[in-house]
Amino acid sequence: MAARLSSAQDYKGLLDKYDTWLFDCDGVLWQGDRLIEGVPEVLSLLRTHKKRILFVTNNATKSRKSYKKKFDQLGLEAHVDEVFGSAYASAVYISTVMKMPKHKKVYVVGMKGLEEELEEEGIQHLGGTDPADNTLAEFHLKNFHPDPDVGAVLCGLDTSINYTKLSKAFTYLRRNPGCAFLATNIDSTYPSAEGLLPGAGAISAPLATALGRQPLSIGKPAETMMDCIKAKCQFDPTRAIMVGDRLNTDIEFGNRGGLSTLLVLTGITHESEVVGPNASTTIPTYFTNSIGDLRTAIS
Amino acid sequence: MAARLSSAQDYKGLLDKYDTWLFDCDGVLWQGDRLIEGVPEVLSLLRTHKKRILFVTNNATKSRKSYKKKFDQLGLEAHVDEVFGSAYASAVYISTVMKMPKHKKVYVVGMKGLEEELEEEGIQHLGGTDPADNTLAEFHLKNFHPDPDVGAVLCGLDTSINYTKLSKAFTYLRRNPGCAFLATNIDSTYPSAEGLLPGAGAISAPLATALGRQPLSIGKPAETMMDCIKAKCQFDPTRAIMVGDRLNTDIEFGNRGGLSTLLVLTGITHESEVVGPNASTTIPTYFTNSIGDLRTAIS
Repeated sequence: MAARLSSAQDYKGLLDKYDTWLFDCDGVLWQGDRLIEGVPEVLSLLRTHKKRILFVTNNATKSRKSYKKKFDQLGLEAHVDEVFGSAYASAVYISTVMKMPKHKKVYVVGMKGLEEELEEEGIQHLGGTDPADNTLAEFHLKNFHPDPDVGAVLCGLDTSINYTKLSKAFTYLRRNPGCAFLATNIDSTYPSAEGLLPGAGAISAPLATALGRQPLSIGKPAETMMDCIKAKCQFDPTRAIMVGDRLNTDIEFGNRGGLSTLLVLTGITHESEVVGPNASTTIPTYFTNSIGDLRTAIS
Repeated sequence: MAARLSSAQDYKGLLDKYDTWLFDCDGVLWQGDRLIEGVPEVLSLLRTHKKRILFVTNNATKSRKSYKKKFDQLGLEAHVDEVFGSAYASAVYISTVMKMPKHKKVYVVGMKGLEEELEEEGIQHLGGTDPADNTLAEFHLKNFHPDPDVGAVLCGLDTSINYTKLSKAFTYLRRNPGCAFLATNIDSTYPSAEGLLPGAGAISAPLATALGRQPLSIGKPAETMMDCIKAKCQFDPTRAIMVGDRLNTDIEFGNRGGLSTLLVLTGITHESEVVGPNASTTIPTYFTNSIGDLRTAIS
């Protein structure tokens, strides 16, 4: 059963026990564009105690650089090499795990941040923000000339999703069984500043349905994301903690990686999903109302 | 095991045995805009023998009236009251089974034909072809004022699918548990004139993923479609045959309804799915290469 943290002593114990702190961002540090109370103090506290901080997000609409800007705007200290996004992890997966040859290309159902991370890894891409693919004009297969060098279709959250992009991605995957079907993540919803909206999992769902198979998802809870982090940062999992608001992504991710996990209730998960008769089978090590509560450890 | 039809005698036997002939259209009578060889002769033969003919299609992009025009353009005799489309069946379901009050509205993720059928049944609708909802502009929940009278979200094939429509539909369904989640059909693919494209099932998939629940599907193979036909036409199921190209829609639909079934191989299904070690568990009564083969019964 998950242990509920509430006293200053609980939080001080946590500070002593863990050297590496992995944070999900949306629903943990902020809600949309609104910082969660106490977050700046808690992050400062961790930095003062020389803790290693990593930000691990499934948000693939932003590159690490743009994500760093979000921290700047909210007045939070963060460094690009502390940020691990599913867009970045996808690009690393394509170049280092798939080892896709340099002449091959990725057809992107996603946004600018995803394209930027592919470019950083030297991966050629099509689709994405290309105006020709961002249209509601009728799609005709006969006018579509598939690029024979497309070796993967990569789906992330794409608020410009449309039938042309879906039809092209479907055609690449259907006609070429060797074409990899990847998703940055399959979060069902996306916590916008104003409320929940369909997430990246809803963007790859039409293709999964039409093809009758699921994409390989790179982001949390997949091990691919953990491998990507471990390739850049050495840390002892037994002295590391993953803090998140989603049981099926953040907590599952930490649990699978052998880390301790802390669920916060400032995001998507309700307390009834953690304790009681309807609790999920994914159990965090700890849970607390808000990461801001760790401030009490300061006093 | 399904019986393969091949001789003139086989086809003559079929003519004697069945009075009511239900036909799927795409992949059976035509492929996209191309008529399948022999279809006019076979339909004429059936009419000459005083057989009742019904056209049962999951295509919800067209109303029955527009669908009738497709027959006209291809030079095939058809009457509006012989056509049962999933758009029509959805409208009938909403008005007669759900008995949705007249002041309530349907939010449509679909096209003009679907709106026309709703209008024929006197059902108010939003979304659909409304230019405000056919946009790739960024969607903001704060600018969206949900209509409290929306009592159902209805999804059909929509080649203008976009994030605004998905977000509105998601919001109606998420905030109002009493709002019905309906799909005209959940065919995974759509056989366009130029090849396969994502189908209506791919259009409701993002919502099903984001909501974590499936829509009620009205079209084949659901009994709702059969109920809709039986409400308008009396026939003896033991003397009726459903002709189709899809095992999981057409054949399943006929089998469930207690009809005999004839699979044709001019559409989506390959012979290896009917006979041999990898055959589907959905078994048609008969199968043949093409409905055009019935011409041999004329001689």
